[in-house]
Amino acid sequence: MAQRHLDPTDPAAADVTGEALAGYLRARATEFLRALRLHRETGGGSAGGAEEPADAARALRRSARRISASLHTFRPLLDAGWSEEMRPELAWLSGTLGLEHAYEARLERLLLALHRLSGAVPVPAQAADVVTAGSRAAGTAPAAAKAALTGGAGPAHRTPATDHGNLTVGAAKAGALLERQLTLARTRAHSTALQAIGSSRFHAVADKVALLASEVPLAADAPTTDLRPLAAAAEERLTDAVTALPLITAGHPYNAEALVHGLSPDPAPHPQDGPWHQVRLLLRLHRYAREVLHGADGAANVRLLAAGQALNRHRDASEAAAAAAQAARTPRITPATAYALGVLHADQRHEVEASRFAFQRAWQRQTVTAP
Amino acid sequence: MAQRHLDPTDPAAADVTGEALAGYLRARATEFLRALRLHRETGGGSAGGAEEPADAARALRRSARRISASLHTFRPLLDAGWSEEMRPELAWLSGTLGLEHAYEARLERLLLALHRLSGAVPVPAQAADVVTAGSRAAGTAPAAAKAALTGGAGPAHRTPATDHGNLTVGAAKAGALLERQLTLARTRAHSTALQAIGSSRFHAVADKVALLASEVPLAADAPTTDLRPLAAAAEERLTDAVTALPLITAGHPYNAEALVHGLSPDPAPHPQDGPWHQVRLLLRLHRYAREVLHGADGAANVRLLAAGQALNRHRDASEAAAAAAQAARTPRITPATAYALGVLHADQRHEVEASRFAFQRAWQRQTVTAP
Repeated sequence: MAQRHLDPTDPAAADVTGEALAGYLRARATEFLRALRLHRETGGGSAGGAEEPADAARALRRSARRISASLHTFRPLLDAGWSEEMRPELAWLSGTLGLEHAYEARLERLLLALHRLSGAVPVPAQAADVVTAGSRAAGTAPAAAKAALTGGAGPAHRTPATDHGNLTVGAAKAGALLERQLTLARTRAHSTALQAIGSSRFHAVADKVALLASEVPLAADAPTTDLRPLAAAAEERLTDAVTALPLITAGHPYNAEALVHGLSPDPAPHPQDGPWHQVRLLLRLHRYAREVLHGADGAANVRLLAAGQALNRHRDASEAAAAAAQAARTPRITPATAYALGVLHADQRHEVEASRFAFQRAWQRQTVTAP
Repeated sequence: MAQRHLDPTDPAAADVTGEALAGYLRARATEFLRALRLHRETGGGSAGGAEEPADAARALRRSARRISASLHTFRPLLDAGWSEEMRPELAWLSGTLGLEHAYEARLERLLLALHRLSGAVPVPAQAADVVTAGSRAAGTAPAAAKAALTGGAGPAHRTPATDHGNLTVGAAKAGALLERQLTLARTRAHSTALQAIGSSRFHAVADKVALLASEVPLAADAPTTDLRPLAAAAEERLTDAVTALPLITAGHPYNAEALVHGLSPDPAPHPQDGPWHQVRLLLRLHRYAREVLHGADGAANVRLLAAGQALNRHRDASEAAAAAAQAARTPRITPATAYALGVLHADQRHEVEASRFAFQRAWQRQTVTAP
């Protein structure tokens, strides 16, 4: 594996030393600071529905993830103490900033699914792409979701699908319950994120990233050290983890694996999802390592993107299914509400299964046609 | 289409006149009478769990279906008045005799699904073949169901999976509820079937079949009339109906079509299943017409069988899903029970979708490789 990356005929061979890593880290740090400035200018009030703070928070997380990933993959080339201090802080930051968006997207996904399951036309929703990104695009995306995609929805497209009037009785109550629970979680996440951004802990991270934008603490021999063996090791970790996945089962449509334990009493009954989540993270590390070596354009790879999107959908559907199961444990709900949540849970677990199928397809294509 | 069947190089060409139809009908009538004798000798008490009366009832229905189908497909070759009187009686008979088995199989299917969804090992059940016949066979059939298939279950394999001890709380209650409801329905169907068999209406049909075993009321010119145009017309009706199915969608795995309207308030919310049920019947007519022309062995066609099995599974899953939805409307059930029934309903609707996929695959293979 490492041999391929050390190929001396590689045109990029001369560039990919620690210097390239330093350049990459400086660029990501600069992006981080720009996003932070934007976030402060727009007030950080994304719960109110404005777009900019959400975009700024996304850009912050985007840079933080890439810095953190590079610190991990290329650890031997960086000052060890600095690196070890930095990574958990970046993880805390992107975790804290990502939670609000995650709850919002989860609610949108669940409400769209409820509309689909009721045969009702949904209110245009931000999460239209959640539906249309997957295999469900072909002919099944509700009309209004399509309108949102083609720009017909206008400025309303960030409003959650709060109109339950189209839904049937159980589905409407399930939707209202999910909206209450996930909106509460989202509001809390928003406050937590605002508090985090005002905290001394955040200021300390921001200061460190500001330093990184000008000076990367490379290890002594790093500037001339070849990055490719470390990038190859990251790829190998990914390949090994994929090999351990049940891809043969996943490649058989309707294998019914994802819903096994669908009625387990355990609130987190899906340890089977774990290895897929792990591959999702390793795929991201591999993708960012490619960015360091080849630049963002050079690293762009349709198949890696497709595989990554399938795993994102897998994660989203897995968490949405868990949220539906969790909501069904709310005391004093009606049987009709519980029934709708059961259908919804199963629907999302089938989305999990569909995502694994999509990943398997993307991945097989990749390994068959790659040199 | 008719051209192919009139091919004069067909080696069977000389045989397939009304005489062949008469021979086929006499043979089916004889089978019917033999099954009826067996049914009377074994007492008809299949609710007690004995095998023979169930087998006898199955053989009765098998013959009745084939006689009825032939009367339909080759109507112009038979005495019109006799034929028109006979068919509804045969339909009544096989409908009445089939109901008990249908409820039993539906319960087994739902209980096996509940066990699978609970991650529990099921009690060996008759319906093991329901699970393993489909795409779920690969690695997902519960161990005990496999044991039943390999003969490990012994004489207990007709006992329903009544042990809900392995199931989680909601699933156990859902299982108990379904068992109560479907066992009641089955018991009623059993009484109805016994009454039917003792009725003068049944005796009249049996007398007519006894006459048919010796003398088939062919139309005047039937003995020398070619059967193949009528058989070809039956095939054409099938082909036309298949063409109208949404096969392109069905061929895309995880298209999520079958669960649209899964939360509709209508108790029979799946008009989308109708065309598939219709094709199932037309496929059966086509298959029986082939039997008349080529004999049972000559008519055997792996692809037609696979397509037919997929449509049987489609029908079974569709009805099981409806039974789960119906059970969820029982007054005073707990939310946990309703939730489990919701998961179960969605699971069976996904079986519906999986069956359509399987049919599409079987059918495409057929039309691609047929001459």
